[in-house]
Amino acid sequence: MLVGKQSWRFDNQPVIISTGTVGGPFEGNGAIPEAFDLVHDELWIGEKSFEKAQTILVEGAVTTALKKASVKKEDVNFLLAGDLVNQLTPSSFAGRSLAIPYLGMFGACSTSMEGLALGSFLINGSGAHHVVSVASSHNAATEKQFRYPTEYGGQKPPTAQWTATAAGAALVAKTGDGPRVTGATMGKVIDMGISDPFNMGGAMAPAAADTIETHFKEFHRGPDDYDLIVTGDLGQIGLPICRDLLKQKGYELGHDRFQDCGLMLYKEDQPVLAGASGPGCSAVVTYGHLLNKVKSGEIRRLLVVATGALLSPLSFQQKETIPCIAHAVVIESPKGGAL
Amino acid sequence: MLVGKQSWRFDNQPVIISTGTVGGPFEGNGAIPEAFDLVHDELWIGEKSFEKAQTILVEGAVTTALKKASVKKEDVNFLLAGDLVNQLTPSSFAGRSLAIPYLGMFGACSTSMEGLALGSFLINGSGAHHVVSVASSHNAATEKQFRYPTEYGGQKPPTAQWTATAAGAALVAKTGDGPRVTGATMGKVIDMGISDPFNMGGAMAPAAADTIETHFKEFHRGPDDYDLIVTGDLGQIGLPICRDLLKQKGYELGHDRFQDCGLMLYKEDQPVLAGASGPGCSAVVTYGHLLNKVKSGEIRRLLVVATGALLSPLSFQQKETIPCIAHAVVIESPKGGAL
Repeated sequence: MLVGKQSWRFDNQPVIISTGTVGGPFEGNGAIPEAFDLVHDELWIGEKSFEKAQTILVEGAVTTALKKASVKKEDVNFLLAGDLVNQLTPSSFAGRSLAIPYLGMFGACSTSMEGLALGSFLINGSGAHHVVSVASSHNAATEKQFRYPTEYGGQKPPTAQWTATAAGAALVAKTGDGPRVTGATMGKVIDMGISDPFNMGGAMAPAAADTIETHFKEFHRGPDDYDLIVTGDLGQIGLPICRDLLKQKGYELGHDRFQDCGLMLYKEDQPVLAGASGPGCSAVVTYGHLLNKVKSGEIRRLLVVATGALLSPLSFQQKETIPCIAHAVVIESPKGGAL
Repeated sequence: MLVGKQSWRFDNQPVIISTGTVGGPFEGNGAIPEAFDLVHDELWIGEKSFEKAQTILVEGAVTTALKKASVKKEDVNFLLAGDLVNQLTPSSFAGRSLAIPYLGMFGACSTSMEGLALGSFLINGSGAHHVVSVASSHNAATEKQFRYPTEYGGQKPPTAQWTATAAGAALVAKTGDGPRVTGATMGKVIDMGISDPFNMGGAMAPAAADTIETHFKEFHRGPDDYDLIVTGDLGQIGLPICRDLLKQKGYELGHDRFQDCGLMLYKEDQPVLAGASGPGCSAVVTYGHLLNKVKSGEIRRLLVVATGALLSPLSFQQKETIPCIAHAVVIESPKGGAL
């Protein structure tokens, strides 16, 4: 099942039998409104704090995924969850209300695919009948924690990205109908010396390129083996850097087959600077948007490369550079259209 | 391999072929100095911040475990690491320097066994040749983040616990000599309404009792099937509560067979109030102390139930109660002395 050094092939092909996606108002008015099962019309979602609102996002994504598949939460073996808030507060509190055995994951914005990969490993290896992987972010909770309170009105450079208010959950099972998870490549921490937290895309691009190159080598594949390779949230700055880095390695990735979740979520006229970010971004774009194309057969084999910037406000204050990571998951069409 | 709802049996019996344990000066002068491969004589460890010092602890534990087993870091497939610091800063930065594919874990003080369980699952399911699971904590980094700067001299009630400055790593392989990891039970989030962050032991006791009861039921075992059951860090307050809760469920756990890592690390005359805590505590007590007894055959079957309080400073400020969790791992003697 181990392929190469850091990849897995899932021979039993775990199935994503259902997904749940929840967004905030800004996301619901974005470029892919149909990606959301549920859109909240305000950021507080009736709660007294943004973190509690984010817990509602997580709970909503998970319960929606379960409801769509008619699976009870009592029949889910494990919840693999993570987010950006200190000590995974929204995920842990959702773990409390959902009462599903809970495995906390942290890979910053790469958490979406860290959880899906490990959850698929558990299903593939007969360690669970059902798992739910969920990743979330909340714009205001993230701004408050990593930068300034939004009321402060801090200005940002055009390289900055906009943390999505969103949660995406995937319900994975051993059998059933749906896209199959057939492999994964887990990334190394890569730090090329960028210390500007307003240029996460640039910082994360080398990690994405490293994971993609490793994936190609370990699976003996190349760009043509995928209908689409999508990075987590490199944005306008990071995506071309990643494309250039891969070109230097001998891999040509054209604009039609190499895209970024951070550039899919919002409309061009939304003021998100270099694009979207947050664990919730790649989760909802993948589960709510791209999987529909996988289900229809438009995409037969998809590689989702979720990227994460593993900095903290504290590491920034201590003048550290930004360690980054990317985890990749292969998702294939349920229609047997193997490439 | 799934046993019951939330447990795993590892039929291939992954082996802990080596461990690495590093501590601070207070820990090195504690009750089990022989548990440490390396003791630093001051909390800064020559670094400019406590978080950077904690990174040194993590690196030291991992490199020591590798060196003892003559395994190169290039031959380790995955590093499963976690700690208490926001965004797992020390673990992520150690992931950067170690350059081993990195899976960030968060379960507060239960992280030690979350990582060992998932890492053993990967080995058992042929997803890796070698994994390292490492958990760490640093007293001053934790105090600064969760409570007050130590210079402030804040007073604590006797129910409070002392976060250990320690990191413990386990190198797990498919074959080799050493204690075998034969099973695990992953916990649910349990919150009985305690909101006092100076009484973590009391808050975590119901989570430990729930995981232990679930473990017994799912494996059809009882207290007599273990030479020792050890909780992560319930301390003087939590351990008797957990014992009482299990008694109510019909499980009698005597003082000789039911102990707590948080009560093993320090001497009685060290001013640690209700005992030790921190992900590093259960990691070093298990890897540096208890595994020696497993290797010698004195303990044939050990259940380590690492407990975690999933609060954050923010959830406390928002007047939330403390969600808690416990993950249990079964470790058995290499000498074939199955119970």
